[in-house]
Amino acid sequence: MALSDVSKIERNEEGIATVLGILGQRFGERFQTGQAMRAQHAHTTTYIPTQAPDGVVFAETTEEVQEVVRACAAHRVPVIAFGVGSSLEGHVNAPGGGISLDTSRMNRILAVNAEDLDCVVEPGVTREDLNRHLRDTGLFFPIDPGANASLGGMAATRASGTNAVRYGTMRENVLSLTAVMADGEVVKTASRAKKSSAGYDLTRLLVGSEGTLGIITSLTLKLNGIPQAISGGVCPFPTLEAACNTVIATIQMGIPVARIELVNALQMRAMKAYSHLDYPESPCLFVEFHGTDAGVAEEAELFGEIAQDNGGGPFLWTGVAEERTHLWKARHDAYWASLTLRPGAKGLSTDVCVPISRLAECVAETEADIAEMGLIAPIVGHAGDGNFHTLVLMDADDPAEIAKVEAFVARLNLRALAMDGTCTGEHGIGQGKAGFMRREHGHGVEVMRAIKQALDPQNILNPGKILPA
Amino acid sequence: MALSDVSKIERNEEGIATVLGILGQRFGERFQTGQAMRAQHAHTTTYIPTQAPDGVVFAETTEEVQEVVRACAAHRVPVIAFGVGSSLEGHVNAPGGGISLDTSRMNRILAVNAEDLDCVVEPGVTREDLNRHLRDTGLFFPIDPGANASLGGMAATRASGTNAVRYGTMRENVLSLTAVMADGEVVKTASRAKKSSAGYDLTRLLVGSEGTLGIITSLTLKLNGIPQAISGGVCPFPTLEAACNTVIATIQMGIPVARIELVNALQMRAMKAYSHLDYPESPCLFVEFHGTDAGVAEEAELFGEIAQDNGGGPFLWTGVAEERTHLWKARHDAYWASLTLRPGAKGLSTDVCVPISRLAECVAETEADIAEMGLIAPIVGHAGDGNFHTLVLMDADDPAEIAKVEAFVARLNLRALAMDGTCTGEHGIGQGKAGFMRREHGHGVEVMRAIKQALDPQNILNPGKILPA
Repeated sequence: MALSDVSKIERNEEGIATVLGILGQRFGERFQTGQAMRAQHAHTTTYIPTQAPDGVVFAETTEEVQEVVRACAAHRVPVIAFGVGSSLEGHVNAPGGGISLDTSRMNRILAVNAEDLDCVVEPGVTREDLNRHLRDTGLFFPIDPGANASLGGMAATRASGTNAVRYGTMRENVLSLTAVMADGEVVKTASRAKKSSAGYDLTRLLVGSEGTLGIITSLTLKLNGIPQAISGGVCPFPTLEAACNTVIATIQMGIPVARIELVNALQMRAMKAYSHLDYPESPCLFVEFHGTDAGVAEEAELFGEIAQDNGGGPFLWTGVAEERTHLWKARHDAYWASLTLRPGAKGLSTDVCVPISRLAECVAETEADIAEMGLIAPIVGHAGDGNFHTLVLMDADDPAEIAKVEAFVARLNLRALAMDGTCTGEHGIGQGKAGFMRREHGHGVEVMRAIKQALDPQNILNPGKILPA
Repeated sequence: MALSDVSKIERNEEGIATVLGILGQRFGERFQTGQAMRAQHAHTTTYIPTQAPDGVVFAETTEEVQEVVRACAAHRVPVIAFGVGSSLEGHVNAPGGGISLDTSRMNRILAVNAEDLDCVVEPGVTREDLNRHLRDTGLFFPIDPGANASLGGMAATRASGTNAVRYGTMRENVLSLTAVMADGEVVKTASRAKKSSAGYDLTRLLVGSEGTLGIITSLTLKLNGIPQAISGGVCPFPTLEAACNTVIATIQMGIPVARIELVNALQMRAMKAYSHLDYPESPCLFVEFHGTDAGVAEEAELFGEIAQDNGGGPFLWTGVAEERTHLWKARHDAYWASLTLRPGAKGLSTDVCVPISRLAECVAETEADIAEMGLIAPIVGHAGDGNFHTLVLMDADDPAEIAKVEAFVARLNLRALAMDGTCTGEHGIGQGKAGFMRREHGHGVEVMRAIKQALDPQNILNPGKILPA
């Protein structure tokens, strides 16, 4: 189950050569085969070796995506959808070569239906682009995975982030998709109705399918009203367990917390130094409430009481935007802060998610494992969802260290599975976690394989991802 | 596209005879072939002709479901999952005969994980059973389709109801399923983690698949804390449009309304008489808020102001449980109240759902069509979701009237599709709406057919449903 043992797929040299010719002729400057461009499109943020595609095509319309897919289908050549390349598990690698389909020029916002709280966008629109566009409407798109990812990529990996506890993940926030299937046909998965019982849920089938079943060419997304008031702050705890019990009680009381982020002591140390935060070096919860003035004040007070009951506090909260922004910038900069703990190291982010009743136990066992192995790996977590990341700081050129980290990650993933959790809450499987699919899904892997085989019989759409060989 | 023109599937007489023998021997008294029992298991609440199965087996465990499915698979005999028979579109009919798999004895609540706000139940547990069981935990399961349906059936049809606007539908509230697939293998679709990015979303694929891809044998469901406070009431409006605009503004302002039900003037007349309500015979909204004492009062006041801005009111609301119960009992009895408008008639419920910006227009055009055709058909709607039902009161023995109603329903469904809506918000496709699938899904129907073919190549799981012939 070695993480670095990525899938190898036989190259169809003849087909690839033919498709390179076809696309070069058809797309001119919008088709590129330079070394740097190809490598950048297989960019991985892990130590998974880069497997570059043979060419990169910048499509601009659904029809152009159809053309590319049809050319690739006719010659049995892989086609790999590409957003901004911020995925973490080798999703955009091209283990059998083929064509990277770059969607960055499909960046139009096609409609904002304010009355219906939805919008229609092309896949290359990033979440920051969208929220900038929405600014004057009083609406916003809540899903925030940290990176300024493309919305197509976020749907493809079923992304979420800090405020999923309140607003859900891409699973709940995509109303409908348009996608080009492996045969080049276009499917619109659903209408703009809020709900439907009309047949199989093709929207949810494509969300999280990582470009292996279809290539998303437009998305209809749910929007939310910008809250009238926001309050938030940071609350320190003597132990991880006290912090986790506070999370459980908060959720169970139905307090509609918008964000509730766990940061462990080591991560706090890094953040204090990097972002000049004035908090103790102990486990903390970063929390935020969205609602009316009276509501968010009431919720913050209630939360403070729960924290105190669990031995935590003081909970210092504010309704002042600038102060909150500083806190959340610090939280969002946790990755960069962590890197200062071991200058020159590369960070590998894990992503398990467990039922929240098991969160304290899972984090504590993981901290113990980190200590025992002598790793440097701070922890941040979307505690309200039971999802946490360790950022393992490693020398990616040292095979012995890689092996050690792989063993740590494998133990962590199996620990989460044993607690009725998942090996990935929001990053996806890609290449990095395909080895855990059988453990997590059992016979479900064969069901997924049957679906893949039915919808992409030639295995041209992002081959070598999700399903174990 | 005649609604009464249900699918016909050739009977495999030899296989059926063999399976009847096998199941009789294996299940003894838990396998029944009496006429009344068979007819009751093909019970339809529409005028779709009853197509009885050849036998009814009362399974008690996942292993027994596997046995039944394997026997049916070995002899190519249809097997149709049955909950309580409250589905509305011929879902439990057996057009090719075969075995009805009754899940009513699979009615155990296997676990309540209060800390995680989830529970694990067998498919025959009804929502009222579950909520009775949860009463002392401070938790509840919110989805309420009106009927005391089985939770397996609710998942299979992607049911929802009055409070989906706040709590979502079965799509959002099923965390994981165990299901027996067409080959008799068991799949567990997901862990108990709140979210996951691990591969294709088999949970959502099975939710709404109406027993055509697998037979659900257990469900892990999200639970919610019983709100500390509830407020609610009824608000009359001069016009449907005023009521719909109030709904739009309420949702857009982010007021977390728990229920917001539209009732048209004719329906109000019926409800006033049947349930002794003291409100005008004009369009009304029935609304409810869940939260803290201060929160629900604030929300009710805000709603009242929005209603007044739209020419509605007065909004009479209360926090007193008994008074609210009376209102909601009246709303839930709308079906029975409607029947008094034409004694002896049978009611056919339509189920379109449109973007809420189109709701007023869709309801108004439908009211005009009803008037023009001389039908009696009151309207109730889950307005916050854009979903509404007309209950067409008809003489189900009069072919001319059936034809007229069919024409009305077809126009209504096409009207919703033209408004970027769906022909079914929560009832499902079954046999009754299969004729609208191509209009709604285009090439998506072929994708669904490929999935069905891949997962059930012999077409033994509830054949003749969802997919058009």
